[in-house]
Amino acid sequence: MNTEIISVGDELLIGQTINTNASWMGEQLLNAGIRVDWVTTVGDNAGHIETALKIAESRANVVLITGGLGPTHDDITKKVISRYFDSKMVLNRKVLENIKARFKKRGILMSQVNRDQALVPEKAKVIFNDNGTAPGLIFDRNGVTFYVMPGVPMEMKAIMKRFVIPQLREKRGERTILFQIYCTTGIAESTLFQKIGDIAEIEKYARLAFLPSPSGVKMRLMTEGQTQKAAQDALKQAEILLRKNIESYIYASGKCSLEQVVANILTQRGKTLAVAESCTGGLLANNLTNISGSSKFFDRGIISYSNQAKMQALGVPETLIAEHGAVSAQVAQAMAEGVRNTAGTDYGLSTTGIAGPTGGTPEKPVGLVFIGYSDANETLAKRFNFLSDRMGNKERSVAAALNLLREKLG
Amino acid sequence: MNTEIISVGDELLIGQTINTNASWMGEQLLNAGIRVDWVTTVGDNAGHIETALKIAESRANVVLITGGLGPTHDDITKKVISRYFDSKMVLNRKVLENIKARFKKRGILMSQVNRDQALVPEKAKVIFNDNGTAPGLIFDRNGVTFYVMPGVPMEMKAIMKRFVIPQLREKRGERTILFQIYCTTGIAESTLFQKIGDIAEIEKYARLAFLPSPSGVKMRLMTEGQTQKAAQDALKQAEILLRKNIESYIYASGKCSLEQVVANILTQRGKTLAVAESCTGGLLANNLTNISGSSKFFDRGIISYSNQAKMQALGVPETLIAEHGAVSAQVAQAMAEGVRNTAGTDYGLSTTGIAGPTGGTPEKPVGLVFIGYSDANETLAKRFNFLSDRMGNKERSVAAALNLLREKLG
Repeated sequence: MNTEIISVGDELLIGQTINTNASWMGEQLLNAGIRVDWVTTVGDNAGHIETALKIAESRANVVLITGGLGPTHDDITKKVISRYFDSKMVLNRKVLENIKARFKKRGILMSQVNRDQALVPEKAKVIFNDNGTAPGLIFDRNGVTFYVMPGVPMEMKAIMKRFVIPQLREKRGERTILFQIYCTTGIAESTLFQKIGDIAEIEKYARLAFLPSPSGVKMRLMTEGQTQKAAQDALKQAEILLRKNIESYIYASGKCSLEQVVANILTQRGKTLAVAESCTGGLLANNLTNISGSSKFFDRGIISYSNQAKMQALGVPETLIAEHGAVSAQVAQAMAEGVRNTAGTDYGLSTTGIAGPTGGTPEKPVGLVFIGYSDANETLAKRFNFLSDRMGNKERSVAAALNLLREKLG
Repeated sequence: MNTEIISVGDELLIGQTINTNASWMGEQLLNAGIRVDWVTTVGDNAGHIETALKIAESRANVVLITGGLGPTHDDITKKVISRYFDSKMVLNRKVLENIKARFKKRGILMSQVNRDQALVPEKAKVIFNDNGTAPGLIFDRNGVTFYVMPGVPMEMKAIMKRFVIPQLREKRGERTILFQIYCTTGIAESTLFQKIGDIAEIEKYARLAFLPSPSGVKMRLMTEGQTQKAAQDALKQAEILLRKNIESYIYASGKCSLEQVVANILTQRGKTLAVAESCTGGLLANNLTNISGSSKFFDRGIISYSNQAKMQALGVPETLIAEHGAVSAQVAQAMAEGVRNTAGTDYGLSTTGIAGPTGGTPEKPVGLVFIGYSDANETLAKRFNFLSDRMGNKERSVAAALNLLREKLG
């Protein structure tokens, strides 16, 4: 089964809207054991839509089209696809009733453009849309099935879940695809690659991919099997081989969230955390507090941007800053210890560094960051050089801080 | 000029990574007066990449390819494209030096797979990558130019900005596309729409689009002209009509960044700010410190997640919390005043609310937020009900806090 998504809309081409529909569909389809092979994005342009349909028909047997079904003049997908299938338009009474009912419920006057949405191509099967006025359409030709859906995410998702995915799951048959994500941090992609060793051996069972990001390298194993059981077995085998030499670098599988891993451990043990941030400027606290229930372990964050704040709110000695500079292992330690003591928490974490783009010197270049850690028994700092831009340095610093805490939590 | 983006990577097809690269490129190119016509996404599959190149070469004269240039075995774009252009690989000394220097700076051992990244197709011009180890490549054939870039956003963006966009801007010639963004906050999309009035009159000069987001509604005017001057005139005319009835809601045009607007005013006036965050958990400070040079006006942030922290670090009276609850106008005021006094800054801002998804009650539902403001003359709090999810409530709270400060700064 070869699958293509065609996303229609000017807003997708000019960066006004990010194509989250295509990625949502790709994820849902993979969960149903179906892999998307191509995503083609075109504007609200009849010629381009038609060409995209032609190319898709020549190489795929499932084509999923979204966007351009709305009531206004710039929505042309239905018109173009009807012409493509040489099909005239007919009024669908059931669709019209649905549209009428929607307007009545909302107490809004219905206009002619909405009535026109009940016109559907004669050759299409109609998928009813419970969340909007534009119906979905199915065309079949020479073994290729075209599903046409609205671009409004809520409407597309409901149609996918209720009609498209169940149909495709049946078509798929026994053969399926499984995958798993493995999350690492604090190790370079190339180092990880070499440590793993015999990739070819792993790839006898599943394809291995590397996905670097500022917060760490993710790895993905993906495999196809004639049956669910065969795919599961292959994935299991590949995972054993993958983990063999790099087990200690994998901090999670599935969803890669260092803050979630740390949050789980702290919550489970009833331990508390406070953070003191300089170069990360609140990003560390923000990531931690994105977790619902973070108030159970997160007591406070001090964003000590000024030296005055470091001294006053964290008790960092003025002499320490004068002697070593605000960006130093000594100050990172004093910050971590200071915030832990002030807050009375079990753990303290701190960041101080040169985020950039300005503020760097030959001795302390942009990207130089110290992460401080403090618990009842020890206080320490680690030095990093991230060589990134302001945002990248902030993200890498947060990942390094969370990873240090994770390692210390054991 | 017809432009196509080819995004390469399995992760884009299976929904593991959203294709933000393509939308960023589309936006940046539009800024340079160039419209993207197609975005084609394919997996790390030699046959599919090759077909995508063939199709693009047949219909576009500018092709921008990203992804699959990394050091690991699953990155095959360079190999496929070299074969496509029938070009052998040669070692590029300058690229090798760059790679070596990066590893030395970071204090990491360099491996053979990194050395191999210095192999480039003989027929390609090399674009140096200051942010990573994979160089960019340029191929020219029969009037079609192919730019090959890494998929890591930071690396791609730097190459686009420094090399690709300036080159394309020259190629573009006289005919151009212009657009402008107008930023509003604190007003609903439909209200804004109605207040504007005669949209058809505006659209005689430029197309108008509305882009709602948690931090406010943006509007975009876009127009094409035979010359730069013609486009400018049309845009100017449309802008006058657009602004007529809603001038006061527009806080900026171009880049919509409330923190930047506030930062500019504070820096200009030599004034300072400290923030006390509860429900926003560091997001307010994080947005402010994303601005380079924020240390000029931003003194500190206190993320007082626990009541203990509110009392201890901000001096919020225990009785106030007991009487009104932590989520109250009274506590918001005490937080804003407390952080301003502690830090000795000119202004204090605070947030306290129920971000959700848990913690809501009938009287204080999820989405209820109080924003506190304090300066030398007054301290006040504003109540909001954002009715959103955790992330949405955090974002809306930050926008409301920054907008309150902006209004007070006049």
